Amino acid sequence: MFFHDSRLQYEVRVDNPNPVFAKYLQQAIGGVEGEIRVAMQYLFQAMGARGPVKYRDMLMQTATEELSHIEFLGHAVALNLEGAPASMQEDAAKDPVVAAILGGQNPRHILSSGLSAMPVNSVGTPFDMSHVYATGNIGADMLANATAEAGGRVLASRLYNLTDDAGMKDMLSFLIARDTMHQQQWLAVIEELGGYKAVLPIPNSTPQEHEAMEHSYYFCTTSLDKDAPEGRWTSGKSLDGRSKFSVRKGEPMGQEPSLGKARPDSAAQSEQM
Amino acid sequence: MFFHDSRLQYEVRVDNPNPVFAKYLQQAIGGVEGEIRVAMQYLFQAMGARGPVKYRDMLMQTATEELSHIEFLGHAVALNLEGAPASMQEDAAKDPVVAAILGGQNPRHILSSGLSAMPVNSVGTPFDMSHVYATGNIGADMLANATAEAGGRVLASRLYNLTDDAGMKDMLSFLIARDTMHQQQWLAVIEELGGYKAVLPIPNSTPQEHEAMEHSYYFCTTSLDKDAPEGRWTSGKSLDGRSKFSVRKGEPMGQEPSLGKARPDSAAQSEQM
Amino acid sequence: MFFHDSRLQYEVRVDNPNPVFAKYLQQAIGGVEGEIRVAMQYLFQAMGARGPVKYRDMLMQTATEELSHIEFLGHAVALNLEGAPASMQEDAAKDPVVAAILGGQNPRHILSSGLSAMPVNSVGTPFDMSHVYATGNIGADMLANATAEAGGRVLASRLYNLTDDAGMKDMLSFLIARDTMHQQQWLAVIEELGGYKAVLPIPNSTPQEHEAMEHSYYFCTTSLDKDAPEGRWTSGKSLDGRSKFSVRKGEPMGQEPSLGKARPDSAAQSEQM
Amino acid sequence: MFFHDSRLQYEVRVDNPNPVFAKYLQQAIGGVEGEIRVAMQYLFQAMGARGPVKYRDMLMQTATEELSHIEFLGHAVALNLEGAPASMQEDAAKDPVVAAILGGQNPRHILSSGLSAMPVNSVGTPFDMSHVYATGNIGADMLANATAEAGGRVLASRLYNLTDDAGMKDMLSFLIARDTMHQQQWLAVIEELGGYKAVLPIPNSTPQEHEAMEHSYYFCTTSLDKDAPEGRWTSGKSLDGRSKFSVRKGEPMGQEPSLGKARPDSAAQSEQM
Amino acid sequence: MFFHDSRLQYEVRVDNPNPVFAKYLQQAIGGVEGEIRVAMQYLFQAMGARGPVKYRDMLMQTATEELSHIEFLGHAVALNLEGAPASMQEDAAKDPVVAAILGGQNPRHILSSGLSAMPVNSVGTPFDMSHVYATGNIGADMLANATAEAGGRVLASRLYNLTDDAGMKDMLSFLIARDTMHQQQWLAVIEELGGYKAVLPIPNSTPQEHEAMEHSYYFCTTSLDKDAPEGRWTSGKSLDGRSKFSVRKGEPMGQEPSLGKARPDSAAQSEQM
Amino acid sequence: MFFHDSRLQYEVRVDNPNPVFAKYLQQAIGGVEGEIRVAMQYLFQAMGARGPVKYRDMLMQTATEELSHIEFLGHAVALNLEGAPASMQEDAAKDPVVAAILGGQNPRHILSSGLSAMPVNSVGTPFDMSHVYATGNIGADMLANATAEAGGRVLASRLYNLTDDAGMKDMLSFLIARDTMHQQQWLAVIEELGGYKAVLPIPNSTPQEHEAMEHSYYFCTTSLDKDAPEGRWTSGKSLDGRSKFSVRKGEPMGQEPSLGKARPDSAAQSEQM
Repeated sequence: MFFHDSRLQYEVRVDNPNPVFAKYLQQAIGGVEGEIRVAMQYLFQAMGARGPVKYRDMLMQTATEELSHIEFLGHAVALNLEGAPASMQEDAAKDPVVAAILGGQNPRHILSSGLSAMPVNSVGTPFDMSHVYATGNIGADMLANATAEAGGRVLASRLYNLTDDAGMKDMLSFLIARDTMHQQQWLAVIEELGGYKAVLPIPNSTPQEHEAMEHSYYFCTTSLDKDAPEGRWTSGKSLDGRSKFSVRKGEPMGQEPSLGKARPDSAAQSEQM
Repeated sequence: MFFHDSRLQYEVRVDNPNPVFAKYLQQAIGGVEGEIRVAMQYLFQAMGARGPVKYRDMLMQTATEELSHIEFLGHAVALNLEGAPASMQEDAAKDPVVAAILGGQNPRHILSSGLSAMPVNSVGTPFDMSHVYATGNIGADMLANATAEAGGRVLASRLYNLTDDAGMKDMLSFLIARDTMHQQQWLAVIEELGGYKAVLPIPNSTPQEHEAMEHSYYFCTTSLDKDAPEGRWTSGKSLDGRSKFSVRKGEPMGQEPSLGKARPDSAAQSEQM
Repeated sequence: MFFHDSRLQYEVRVDNPNPVFAKYLQQAIGGVEGEIRVAMQYLFQAMGARGPVKYRDMLMQTATEELSHIEFLGHAVALNLEGAPASMQEDAAKDPVVAAILGGQNPRHILSSGLSAMPVNSVGTPFDMSHVYATGNIGADMLANATAEAGGRVLASRLYNLTDDAGMKDMLSFLIARDTMHQQQWLAVIEELGGYKAVLPIPNSTPQEHEAMEHSYYFCTTSLDKDAPEGRWTSGKSLDGRSKFSVRKGEPMGQEPSLGKARPDSAAQSEQM
Repeated sequence: MFFHDSRLQYEVRVDNPNPVFAKYLQQAIGGVEGEIRVAMQYLFQAMGARGPVKYRDMLMQTATEELSHIEFLGHAVALNLEGAPASMQEDAAKDPVVAAILGGQNPRHILSSGLSAMPVNSVGTPFDMSHVYATGNIGADMLANATAEAGGRVLASRLYNLTDDAGMKDMLSFLIARDTMHQQQWLAVIEELGGYKAVLPIPNSTPQEHEAMEHSYYFCTTSLDKDAPEGRWTSGKSLDGRSKFSVRKGEPMGQEPSLGKARPDSAAQSEQM
Repeated sequence: MFFHDSRLQYEVRVDNPNPVFAKYLQQAIGGVEGEIRVAMQYLFQAMGARGPVKYRDMLMQTATEELSHIEFLGHAVALNLEGAPASMQEDAAKDPVVAAILGGQNPRHILSSGLSAMPVNSVGTPFDMSHVYATGNIGADMLANATAEAGGRVLASRLYNLTDDAGMKDMLSFLIARDTMHQQQWLAVIEELGGYKAVLPIPNSTPQEHEAMEHSYYFCTTSLDKDAPEGRWTSGKSLDGRSKFSVRKGEPMGQEPSLGKARPDSAAQSEQM
Repeated sequence: MFFHDSRLQYEVRVDNPNPVFAKYLQQAIGGVEGEIRVAMQYLFQAMGARGPVKYRDMLMQTATEELSHIEFLGHAVALNLEGAPASMQEDAAKDPVVAAILGGQNPRHILSSGLSAMPVNSVGTPFDMSHVYATGNIGADMLANATAEAGGRVLASRLYNLTDDAGMKDMLSFLIARDTMHQQQWLAVIEELGGYKAVLPIPNSTPQEHEAMEHSYYFCTTSLDKDAPEGRWTSGKSLDGRSKFSVRKGEPMGQEPSLGKARPDSAAQSEQM
């Protein structure tokens, strides 16, 4: 069960409100790299967690932290919208900076939300929950979470570079820090479970007889004019220690597909039957 | 530039066509764990790749392989739809197994595609390209790719368990094998770049002064009735070697947010102004 | 069956075409507060109406009126796009106002529609029909309709504030007026059915034994640092007259959830089994 | 800032797990009538609340409660998936009830989530955040919230009718009860603000000179073969007390629209220029 | 401006209500091949029509007819839902045909709409307006319309084959007929404008100097193991009479792309810079 | 099976990078008129092709060509993003042209992709695969393909008009040319199959007794104030040679719909029962 404290997890200060930055900042709320995504992803993973309880607890506690991130970012967006232009008056249209803001801000910040945050990204696309990745496999889920946090820290770093508002920089430096920890945290689970050697291939419970092992460790080239790019993945021991990497030239092993004629009841053209 | 050979990368054989399995199999084509996703994800990452050329090449070659996976899976779906029931005739309605198939198959396999594969998942939702993760940061992208392949191998394993058609099991064992390699391949890039120690935190180019380092290495508890779940992430050296893990009880560090009164031109209720 | 008259329901005049305003105006066509939504919502409610015929008739007649609103708004968008810049010529790029328009207009007004209205909102997101709320319960539907019209009138008021084009202001004042009536109209149905006392709780046909009545009339606090915000909802008679409002401190009444181990056939990691 | 207690807000018990009911139950999590929607809607309304603080507090506290509803419903879905069929073995295919379940369950409960809840509705469509209605106008928002709770209670009542599992009926009776309160709660705000008379038309801050008042209080007929359906909305005082209802036969007041010829640079056919 | 007559354009009779057929039938309402799509597509094309008025009139009149198709199909869905099972009672679960229907029907027909039509397709996906194709080019639009009607008649033919309900067959035979006319109607515009010779290439107003004519009339082979499939498109006069068809072996004419190093402010990994 | 050559199908040169043009150009990648759409549409049509093999081959070869178009357009977008502004520094905000670019570019080109192409359109909406039209009917599919190429050439022509960058104009002139061929190519299939006379009505395999032929060849008027717009479609032989065109005044042929009372178990209001 969830509870709430009226104060924010971190302080939000906006020295120079900027409605265009408000639009950009939305990416951290409703973007695929944003906080709604991780809050919901960790929540659904926690609700579906099977196996050692501590992973469930960890997921739920961090899901809860992410909800608090939505909250302070939402406040930051609203503060950036203070003073946003809401009219296309004649002289405004003649001031090119105002014109640029009128064109550059998210119109729905004026029209739909009344100058506050929305669950959308920086181009106004609403977040959709298909981005909540939760497979029931802890290895896959930890990678998904580390991915989300890597994307999140990339985004926060770019937002940091974008603004020169001291308050916003301060808040973003906190986000950058928490994303550092969260990346570590999910990858630490993989370490704890034995690292790549034990965890890979995911799922590690798939019986070997379900796998065509002769195809499991070669890099398949598909280039007509280049060889395989060489690296850790073309030779040497595989990360899971089960085999060795090699290279194989891709070539068709299957048939030319054919579906024959169309069925009479399938509303094809008669020439297809 | 792309080219094509008429034969499939792998042979497809369906011994007992099953339209309900066709519906399930769609998850491997148009699901977020499916082949359209990885083909397009690697393609867009390749097109945006900056830095060492070999990663671009690797991405493009595997993108090309994944296109071939779409192709043979598409053929598998079509073969499973041979003989799918396309009528609700009276006696059919009385045969409960036929009734179950009529209810259980994807109606659009009859109505929209004329008995062939569609770019949708197992519940008929079309794939949408927001799931193509490509950040321009090779660390984030490699994790995203390993995630996608982990999800893919989990899915292929579940499909393998679901069917008892020998042809389908054979094809899926190939997919399981290639997903093994692809997981390895992307994580091997991280190894090559120095492993977690060098790669984390992602992006590793964010200047330390952009990060509130005092918040970067503690697990933040948010539970009212439980302590931090202990593990690799609560004590000991951080994975990037920059610091040590610790635990900190979550508590509000910010203000209670307040937006004050509504603007007269914002169409709020007058009681809000 | 529907019919059409070539003239618009209301006159549309645009004195100073403005492609950025055209983008904003799209919210009234394809936004969730827009006319496609209400036209389709009332149509589907009418088609599913059970019970007294007059409500079906009312819904269908107003659905028909809303179709006419789409039509004149579509004309308004097209007229605002007259003269929209369709080239990035060098000198244009140097004129900051032209640059602002090129950046600020909806690119698809140039690229996709050829300077006319689209069924999208002000950030270009196509309307999707999941926003057609029609439950088959007349109480729920009337509230949904009043909500839609409230959002519509908020939007029209904001658009009115945004423009200083006399023609557009005139058209919007008509929309504001019709939204006034439509708000009234749907809430008047609730009045006619006996007001809150008779209509609530929706559905009023749910047998009392299906409801854990001891949980039906208290405000549940979930704040750790604040009491319940006091008001009409914390004490006094409930709006349906069935009970009295009270306040209760939220606390867990359920178990700590546990799903145990993962199934062997579920492709979890072996550590979860 | 948010916090969490490991126990559920309400107890969840499933006597006879039913994967088809699990699919239906998803509507209460990820449907437009479901808990993610209200949790997020109240959260975003709270974050954008301007005016009296107590409404912000109320919204935030109930948002927090709704998060807890997601949590116990998620557990209920997982418990209903215990024992869900994950294989299409030959004899299974011959048992029509198993066949019906294999066709009738959500395939992604097997393939994607590993037997746990997902943020999707009963047909597997992921929740998308465009359904978070938050206008910044408290009147519009309270109606939107009452609508959401009306839809929620309609849904919970239907789910109650659908199952005969005693544990599920008990849990749903709690949901029905809380939806009763939440309907009351939001409408009580409208009462407190003075009822329809004071609150309507929403927004009540739109200056009268922005409204073509002569069109504000008539029911507009658009039927060719029927008169206006008579009721509270065709005569008598308007709900806001500002005017009287009347009826007016719809007829075109505008021009026949004409856009003239296409621009040469607009890639129309030459016959259009 | 639109008007309405209470009677349907065509009679709807359902002899044996079938909730699974109701689900299939939804494809004709909210599918991409369905009536909402064509109604809205023709409406938006009409609203954006430039050039000869008669095409605008034709579009608007047929848009209006399609609205009437939505209406009678909506009634057909509702009639098919009469008697749909809304409970999972124990004995029902033992009757495999009822079980099949419970699994096979659209759950939202029970849970969300209360036994009536929804603006969704046969797998429950809501129609989204991105499928409204309206380019402002009459040639492109007429092809889009003929495509929509071809898809519509394919669908109606498949639905006809699927049912053995005499009433439904009668209604579908009317739809099949109207789709015949509508296909003709849009292609007749192309005939009237001079046929392929005059209309192609679309847009026919693109100046020849904007086109790299040397690439305009060859079939580009991309197969590694097959020649060009020969036909009307590999030799002989082009359909527009401007040139002759030929075949050319596809080969790269461009550079190997390279983006160089990443920018320091772009949050790439430092190894990319 | 697919293969790849490292060089692009066509050379890409950008003389003056322009991030706003990059945003516009995205329409040709991820728009409904763009290259992902046609690549995937032809691929799925090929995979489902039944009947003469040569059409399958043709579809697959052109699908492969379109993949190459995605690739060079993706490079063009990345090159246009060179030098895109990634900061809102104080003096930048004072330069109105920079301000216009900051507002006018796609924020996700900075925040999400790190200055490279994305699978989205010009307003940032990700491509969704519901736009892959593949019916299994070759007539319907060829029309869909001609439509896609008509839309594509309209788009390319508009982009050509929009830019004055010589490199971009050159690349677009190649696209315009290939779209010319592809339009021809798909329509040439219809010619080869016998033209409209043989191909229409689509599907031409629907038995005449499934069609209410008395409704198949009249233009149905629905205007209250205008006659049928006269043209090729109102009189003379039908395009399929089966009948003659005529005009008929639309009028209701069906009943007034009625659904009666609501079911007690349907959670309607009691007044509806």
